[in-house]
Amino acid sequence: MTQTPYVAGPLVDHHCHGLVRRDLDRPAFEALLNEGAGAGRWTGSPFDSMLGAAIRRHCAPLLGLEPHADPDTYLGRRQALGHDEVARRMLTAAGIDTLLVDTGFQPEEICDPAEVAAYAGPAVRAHEILRLETTAQELLETGTEPRDFRNALRQRLTESEAVGAKSIAAYRCGLDLLGERPSDLDVVATLHSSRPADGEPWRITDRTVISALAWTAIEAGLPLQLHVGYGDNDVDLLRCDPLHLTPFLRATEPLGVPVLLLHNYPFHRHAAYLAQVFDHVFMDVGLAVHNTGALSRRLIEESLELVPFTKLLHSSDAFGLPELYLLGSLLFRRGLDGVLADLVRADELSEPDARRIGAMVAGGNARGAYRL
Amino acid sequence: MTQTPYVAGPLVDHHCHGLVRRDLDRPAFEALLNEGAGAGRWTGSPFDSMLGAAIRRHCAPLLGLEPHADPDTYLGRRQALGHDEVARRMLTAAGIDTLLVDTGFQPEEICDPAEVAAYAGPAVRAHEILRLETTAQELLETGTEPRDFRNALRQRLTESEAVGAKSIAAYRCGLDLLGERPSDLDVVATLHSSRPADGEPWRITDRTVISALAWTAIEAGLPLQLHVGYGDNDVDLLRCDPLHLTPFLRATEPLGVPVLLLHNYPFHRHAAYLAQVFDHVFMDVGLAVHNTGALSRRLIEESLELVPFTKLLHSSDAFGLPELYLLGSLLFRRGLDGVLADLVRADELSEPDARRIGAMVAGGNARGAYRL
Amino acid sequence: MTQTPYVAGPLVDHHCHGLVRRDLDRPAFEALLNEGAGAGRWTGSPFDSMLGAAIRRHCAPLLGLEPHADPDTYLGRRQALGHDEVARRMLTAAGIDTLLVDTGFQPEEICDPAEVAAYAGPAVRAHEILRLETTAQELLETGTEPRDFRNALRQRLTESEAVGAKSIAAYRCGLDLLGERPSDLDVVATLHSSRPADGEPWRITDRTVISALAWTAIEAGLPLQLHVGYGDNDVDLLRCDPLHLTPFLRATEPLGVPVLLLHNYPFHRHAAYLAQVFDHVFMDVGLAVHNTGALSRRLIEESLELVPFTKLLHSSDAFGLPELYLLGSLLFRRGLDGVLADLVRADELSEPDARRIGAMVAGGNARGAYRL
Repeated sequence: MTQTPYVAGPLVDHHCHGLVRRDLDRPAFEALLNEGAGAGRWTGSPFDSMLGAAIRRHCAPLLGLEPHADPDTYLGRRQALGHDEVARRMLTAAGIDTLLVDTGFQPEEICDPAEVAAYAGPAVRAHEILRLETTAQELLETGTEPRDFRNALRQRLTESEAVGAKSIAAYRCGLDLLGERPSDLDVVATLHSSRPADGEPWRITDRTVISALAWTAIEAGLPLQLHVGYGDNDVDLLRCDPLHLTPFLRATEPLGVPVLLLHNYPFHRHAAYLAQVFDHVFMDVGLAVHNTGALSRRLIEESLELVPFTKLLHSSDAFGLPELYLLGSLLFRRGLDGVLADLVRADELSEPDARRIGAMVAGGNARGAYRL
Repeated sequence: MTQTPYVAGPLVDHHCHGLVRRDLDRPAFEALLNEGAGAGRWTGSPFDSMLGAAIRRHCAPLLGLEPHADPDTYLGRRQALGHDEVARRMLTAAGIDTLLVDTGFQPEEICDPAEVAAYAGPAVRAHEILRLETTAQELLETGTEPRDFRNALRQRLTESEAVGAKSIAAYRCGLDLLGERPSDLDVVATLHSSRPADGEPWRITDRTVISALAWTAIEAGLPLQLHVGYGDNDVDLLRCDPLHLTPFLRATEPLGVPVLLLHNYPFHRHAAYLAQVFDHVFMDVGLAVHNTGALSRRLIEESLELVPFTKLLHSSDAFGLPELYLLGSLLFRRGLDGVLADLVRADELSEPDARRIGAMVAGGNARGAYRL
Repeated sequence: MTQTPYVAGPLVDHHCHGLVRRDLDRPAFEALLNEGAGAGRWTGSPFDSMLGAAIRRHCAPLLGLEPHADPDTYLGRRQALGHDEVARRMLTAAGIDTLLVDTGFQPEEICDPAEVAAYAGPAVRAHEILRLETTAQELLETGTEPRDFRNALRQRLTESEAVGAKSIAAYRCGLDLLGERPSDLDVVATLHSSRPADGEPWRITDRTVISALAWTAIEAGLPLQLHVGYGDNDVDLLRCDPLHLTPFLRATEPLGVPVLLLHNYPFHRHAAYLAQVFDHVFMDVGLAVHNTGALSRRLIEESLELVPFTKLLHSSDAFGLPELYLLGSLLFRRGLDGVLADLVRADELSEPDARRIGAMVAGGNARGAYRL
């Protein structure tokens, strides 16, 4: 873990996924690298990006290579060490003490929260974040009838050991969630009309139902994570501006349960505004931090323009590759520390305040929001 | 007033409000601090923000405290000095020679333009900006009939000593104002259909009527201020992108009356584009400058990318707290000066041009637009 | 040509227009300067902008004047030298070896591609970019019947020596192009219903027809340029966010033909996202680079956050004034080089990689995309 004056301790990574536990050849590694589809005719190699440059610069030395090692050398060394050893080196170097792991995306491909934590160190704790759409589909596929659906979901959420829930509304219906709690009648009717043919899997995409998932999580007292902004090409980014959430946030603020806006790039200033004007809104710039590599400091600084220091969190949104946990952590820590250090140097912030803000953003805010 | 090489003289603050004239305890002070609702369960104290840091850094010394004094020390000292003395110190330090004061928001809570000016110094002049929605509601509530409304408004605007009018369309119907002058028939019909129940106050929210207010002000030759972008959580920021104004601006350009886009953050680049392509459009980054504190320089620089140097203005949008007039002024002056100084240092701008631009933005542009 | 370590060779300018071949007085020069309408009551002179400052700083010395010469001195000297000599000086100094010239806008006013190239130097090559809306209108005005239109267009595109096609959908119907190939039936019906009165010129504005133009170009294997973002006040910038293109890009990706997003400011981060997640999408920040003058580096850096290094191109979008080819080139070269140099200095990028990226963006990417 890089030592920095103002972000000194370990981080809470409040949103990540599991690791892929197999050795990866170049196409497989490149396919997991960023939000594109991997190498391509015009793309060439995804290594030709700020993220690729950051891997070669910061991850290569952890494998015993020179900084800026070329991709084939890097991947050759990676395979020689084996995925297990690489994961251990990256995750211990990440300096994380708590991981909140979204278990709802491709769970068959990746390891579970406890396994991620084990790579990160013996004292590292992992908690589950339950993905609402996946959970809802499981309920419906295992025989829950539409009329029983909402109660069954509520029970599942209440009984779960998850510390939060996550919605991918952004990928399904956009972020324009309903500004009032959908009625049970509407939810039942919508589910009936969207029931798949026999043998087909359920796929929840309706705005009413997805709004009901989000409302139910909040009513159950579970902090609600929302994918916002940047993602792969399944997303329609135009519908992922967090400002679409305004009516939903206005309506849910009185319930006092945290709503955590994930990623947000390139709408991070919009998210910071929402975090200022709605008490229960938190934000991070995960995913974008490692994707923008050495240029990530600007996003962090732009977020700090308006966000209350009490509402900014760290996440990596790492999925599959251990490099992404490390880079998310290293670059966020360095970027935040750099902004704070410049403010102290210009006498715009006192040293004790910079340390206090660093500690809040690194973990204190997340521990409060999720009652860890 | 901080002396800076390129923004040397006093500023025109072309959009602010009145001051609260009473001593404030911590909750009351925090409630006025930013666009949030004050202290909160998750927010903690609004002092934990760039604005809070700026107050502790730059306002504390004006009260005889060390820079970075903690909030309770600051507020204790503030109460000991009394609101009158604090207002005098902040406003004289702001280095403002002309204030344009919007009198339409909570006038019972705050002092009038002349009183603000008196705090700022004996030679400081204040002018009124008349808020259109408030004025219209007053006319209707004092018995003006819908059929007489437009003439009555025109007369009120013509007789007023206000140097400009302001619309809060952003808060009522969004910025998608009509690209053609609404007909009298439409306005009368809309007013009839939105007449409140007996004893209820009028509240103008209809796009046709609000468009009519804006058109009437321009036809009366009054420079028209529009709230754009950032505001409290009553605003739906998605409808406050100034690009929604495009049809209205295209239609009103031939009339040659200034339209002044206020605040604009986070859409300030959009506003700067509009100021480049429409001759009568001006802009500022008020409100955002003090809210982003020591990080405000970037907004100013981003605005300068496209805005004609003849169309950028200063405003604080200060309301209630004297600290906000000071910070708006100090940070804008410093940010603009910093950009100009860097351009001169890199030999991208000559020193005389930098001084000329500084003087235009500090006050010349505003004096021209409002014929002061 | 300014020598820079990482962008050392000549540039490909993959989108520009022809030059005006006459001497210009101040009003005529100012009218061509930026996207505004020239000098104006409130604008004053368009020289009062970052672009004006850049002309006075960087173009004046090429005419034998001191840097920062005032506008009248500059224009006087320009007239004394004559437009021919000025064009030769600016274009040879631009360090361009290949120009792709859009011939569809005001062709009667400006010179043709070969003439632009001749100013730039004996070894400079120019290629035509065929404007789709102009070409389609020509076909219809010279008697092509709606039922034959699509075949006629296909033939024209196939027979043309143009290396790419361009659409100004942004100016006509917005960027929300159809996500599936329009049927011949729909195109024929739309053309029939929009046929102008006798003697009136055709003007294609319908979304179905313009989508058909774009699909036809791609099916003919011609790289497709799209105006995106910033433009003059005919554009409705709200409809020019490249994210509106998402369904069209998702649908056309399998065809493997480059789609090149031009300008993009202030949506360049959105364009960079699209270039990451769709293999066939390229981008530039042309037009904005010279308009933002000495502040243009930030746009370049913001684009590099997400764009694959293989998908960023240079264009000037220069029209009319030789100054704009020079400034586009000089500022892009300097901005990109500055970012790369800072990354090398911070040991975030190796020197060979910085040189390789510089060469790709300067010309390699364009040569690949257009098969030059």
